Amino acid sequence: MKYAIGVDFGTESGRGVMVEVDTGQEVATAVYPYSNGVIDEALPESGVPLEPDWALQDPQDYLRVFQNTVPQLLRESGVDPSDVIGVGIDFTACTMLPVKADGTPLCMLAEWRAIPHAWVKLWKHHAAQPEADQINETARRMKQAWLERYGGKISSEWFFSKALQILHEAPELYAAADRLIEAADWVVWQLTGVETRNACTAGYKAIWSKREGFPPREYFAALHPQFANVIEEKMSRDIRPVGQRAGGLTEQAAAWMGLKPGTAVAIANVDAHVAVPAATVTDVGRMVMIMGTSICHMVLGSEEHVVPGMCGYVEDGIITGFFGYEAGQSCVGDHFAWFVDHCLPAAYQQEAQARGLDAHVLLEEKAALLKPGASGLLALDWWNGNRSVLVDVDLTGLLLGATLATRPEEIYRALIEATAYGTRVIVETFQQNGVPIHELVACGGLPEKNKLLMQIYADVTGCPIRVSASQQTPALGSAMFGAVAAGKAAGGFDTIYDAAQRMARLKDETYTPIPEHRPVYDRLFAEYLSLHDYFGRGGNDVMKRLKAIRAEVLGPAEAVYA
Amino acid sequence: MKYAIGVDFGTESGRGVMVEVDTGQEVATAVYPYSNGVIDEALPESGVPLEPDWALQDPQDYLRVFQNTVPQLLRESGVDPSDVIGVGIDFTACTMLPVKADGTPLCMLAEWRAIPHAWVKLWKHHAAQPEADQINETARRMKQAWLERYGGKISSEWFFSKALQILHEAPELYAAADRLIEAADWVVWQLTGVETRNACTAGYKAIWSKREGFPPREYFAALHPQFANVIEEKMSRDIRPVGQRAGGLTEQAAAWMGLKPGTAVAIANVDAHVAVPAATVTDVGRMVMIMGTSICHMVLGSEEHVVPGMCGYVEDGIITGFFGYEAGQSCVGDHFAWFVDHCLPAAYQQEAQARGLDAHVLLEEKAALLKPGASGLLALDWWNGNRSVLVDVDLTGLLLGATLATRPEEIYRALIEATAYGTRVIVETFQQNGVPIHELVACGGLPEKNKLLMQIYADVTGCPIRVSASQQTPALGSAMFGAVAAGKAAGGFDTIYDAAQRMARLKDETYTPIPEHRPVYDRLFAEYLSLHDYFGRGGNDVMKRLKAIRAEVLGPAEAVYA
Repeated sequence: MKYAIGVDFGTESGRGVMVEVDTGQEVATAVYPYSNGVIDEALPESGVPLEPDWALQDPQDYLRVFQNTVPQLLRESGVDPSDVIGVGIDFTACTMLPVKADGTPLCMLAEWRAIPHAWVKLWKHHAAQPEADQINETARRMKQAWLERYGGKISSEWFFSKALQILHEAPELYAAADRLIEAADWVVWQLTGVETRNACTAGYKAIWSKREGFPPREYFAALHPQFANVIEEKMSRDIRPVGQRAGGLTEQAAAWMGLKPGTAVAIANVDAHVAVPAATVTDVGRMVMIMGTSICHMVLGSEEHVVPGMCGYVEDGIITGFFGYEAGQSCVGDHFAWFVDHCLPAAYQQEAQARGLDAHVLLEEKAALLKPGASGLLALDWWNGNRSVLVDVDLTGLLLGATLATRPEEIYRALIEATAYGTRVIVETFQQNGVPIHELVACGGLPEKNKLLMQIYADVTGCPIRVSASQQTPALGSAMFGAVAAGKAAGGFDTIYDAAQRMARLKDETYTPIPEHRPVYDRLFAEYLSLHDYFGRGGNDVMKRLKAIRAEVLGPAEAVYA
Repeated sequence: MKYAIGVDFGTESGRGVMVEVDTGQEVATAVYPYSNGVIDEALPESGVPLEPDWALQDPQDYLRVFQNTVPQLLRESGVDPSDVIGVGIDFTACTMLPVKADGTPLCMLAEWRAIPHAWVKLWKHHAAQPEADQINETARRMKQAWLERYGGKISSEWFFSKALQILHEAPELYAAADRLIEAADWVVWQLTGVETRNACTAGYKAIWSKREGFPPREYFAALHPQFANVIEEKMSRDIRPVGQRAGGLTEQAAAWMGLKPGTAVAIANVDAHVAVPAATVTDVGRMVMIMGTSICHMVLGSEEHVVPGMCGYVEDGIITGFFGYEAGQSCVGDHFAWFVDHCLPAAYQQEAQARGLDAHVLLEEKAALLKPGASGLLALDWWNGNRSVLVDVDLTGLLLGATLATRPEEIYRALIEATAYGTRVIVETFQQNGVPIHELVACGGLPEKNKLLMQIYADVTGCPIRVSASQQTPALGSAMFGAVAAGKAAGGFDTIYDAAQRMARLKDETYTPIPEHRPVYDRLFAEYLSLHDYFGRGGNDVMKRLKAIRAEVLGPAEAVYA
């Protein structure tokens, strides 16, 4: 029996999993919480304070994930290291750092260690909004065609926003950095000794495409004279599709983990994207939803289409041979958590305690007794803005239809329904723009926790929903890519299709749309769409004006936090 | 020292107050809770069940109020009955009943006692909506000019809706009723032995005006052939202005109470309207707000104006010589109670308990720390429909601007602000239609309880707000009218103006608009108005469609209750 190891780098911890290549069975799991976690108040050791909206990480933590989880996997599974044929990794993105030519992070050098810009900028580092604004304005002014691939807007979270912030605020550090690199690619470099760049982060986060490459030099020059040659000076034009072998483990990296030197390592990948084949999807027509605090939607297309308001699409970005389309909803699990934290009445909390239930379970139980349309409520799921298809962080939440008889479980259900309508907008926008979808495949934490939510999504979208069998789909996906990097000759697979056939599985249950719920939800969705367009497409910009008044009243610093 | 007694008939109880005529000092108060309360499930004794939306009362309870409270007032105050110069009463309205020619209620006769229609229909009896619909449709079809005096709509709560329901559903009982009469007038009849009809209930609830009288015979005939002569057969065209003497106490009524036979009794009045002079308002320019679960707005005008969307206006309806204009907001105190009952998180309830505070006080304290505009929230105060100026029970509540950082006290403050915007719509609609308002005078329970609310109302409307000194303004007002019924020669007053000078008082404090809050609230009010008109005037009837879907899904009976 051969094995592959997947390592999933999350926001708070890294998770390793040992998987049987023939069966996909997960024989051991190990988690290492980052010792420096998310650095958002002050730098370790120096105690240098950070501005609001900063979010950094320590690259040493990533190495400690390998050093801690893999030996534990070997120990607990009893697998012989020589039977481990490949390693794959996936990462949050864009999570990036400045390094020297030999791969040493600047933050690990004494002279830069007390400079915040020397550290890893985590995906949720939001302090580069001015740079994102400049990137977008300049692109519009210079009529850059690539802008529409990304729903018309580059995020402050993405690669060039963060890189430009370094140049603006720490030009000497920018000059000292030989490379700017995704953490995903950096850890693969540390394992193999070879610098590679993956197509997934390059495409989704760094404005690269297989056919057109990066934006032209004049565009970068317009952002800042010293930014003109950022690709040549700090990055690479050699972008490798996911599914390839990046290299073999170095002696040093093999020693960290207790594996054999030369063991195959896959090109780096992104947590959401690597979940797609692990959820059995390697062809068109089935959309994967990674459902947690937010939802990330992934769908493969055989043709290139500009789908308005999506997060982006990348050729070979998920599976080689397909365009990988990505969309997102920024407030899903967070939405229900907000409700439980801020709106759950004492009587309900007491009932949950007395019955030994989680508050969400109690609310789900009560909400499940309601018929669609029976509350008279309708919500817009914009408590955290709208990612797709409006791409507008300044939109806010709306609840309509309340009466003196409105009960908490009715509001809770209305919030669930609102996120389902948001998903339907995304599904229909794809469908209407040439990207077919006929089934949804869910993974992540939410599908395990809330069956009512899954049924409502099926009823609202009209699509059957399957659920990934793995509770750690990204880590499984990384192991699958590890087995592909090893190749069939070594006991792995030659393609991710073959790997998915053997290693990926769905649960037996299917959430099927309930026929009698469909017409009511069609009518409610029509009302949702009408409010969605009125408040989201300029009919009434009251939400933005209220935010502006709020910012004026509070002053910018307070408004950012609250 | 001379005294007058005021008796205020509320929904659950009657309240008597003994007042010094020279000073307005309230020397004793007594409350009698109706033994049969609000009858909304089954009739007393017979147990005959009632349909949904019914709300009845027992007229015997009204007599028991006199028999219990007045002797207690005399006992506790030590006042000599010969020093009590007058009695005034006020009542909820329209609260009406069928009686025989001698004043005996049909429900007190054995043959009718088990028939629901024989009992008093309380103001909140809502089962006559089909009749109200017919009344409105017929009036529009027959182009009845009086309809616009009532904001274009007669309520199901009003006199002819209830009377027509009796005719439709119990024609033999309708035939057996010699009189249909307001409970207010009926209790005055029981005290004096004389049937009188007051201008206040006739004007506000029974489509009467001093200049035009009742609607024409043809109109009533179009509603139902047997309704053609309802005025002549069951009512009276002899409508008496408030402020007059109805008669003197009969021997029997005097004996019930321990007062002297012949003691002056005032023409009946309505609870909200009688509060106006008791809140010192006997002239134009100052609007009285009776603030509790809902708000009733009263303002005097020297000229007749049709003000769109108000509840009605009646010449001599509040103070002789003025047009009395009435408006209403159907969800104020109820709004905050709903929030505390259904949305207050356990942590807040625990904090309130630990500190020995009422939940409303805690929320007020937290909400008072917020600056206007700082929450980014805006609400439409339609949790119970909109009474003025949209006159639409099918509108529902809206909350807009929520984010994942939105806290309970921000929602609570937004609900308060929404009701303040609702008041400003009413104030400005009056002002724009020829009824000047430059100051607000508040009475009722809310002003005592919530200083933040009062300040927000001042800030939003831009009007200073005074507060009535009495905690039982309607009962004080009735005592004032009792003193006027007695007349100056008997130690009372010849006019309500004179009575108000001596007996009515305001608290010293004034809520003055805070200048720096005004511009922010002007901008927020503009946003409120835009949403108010969009959802309330046909821009998007989503609220009505959601209610219709709800009714379809639930079926009519469930929808009525929930």
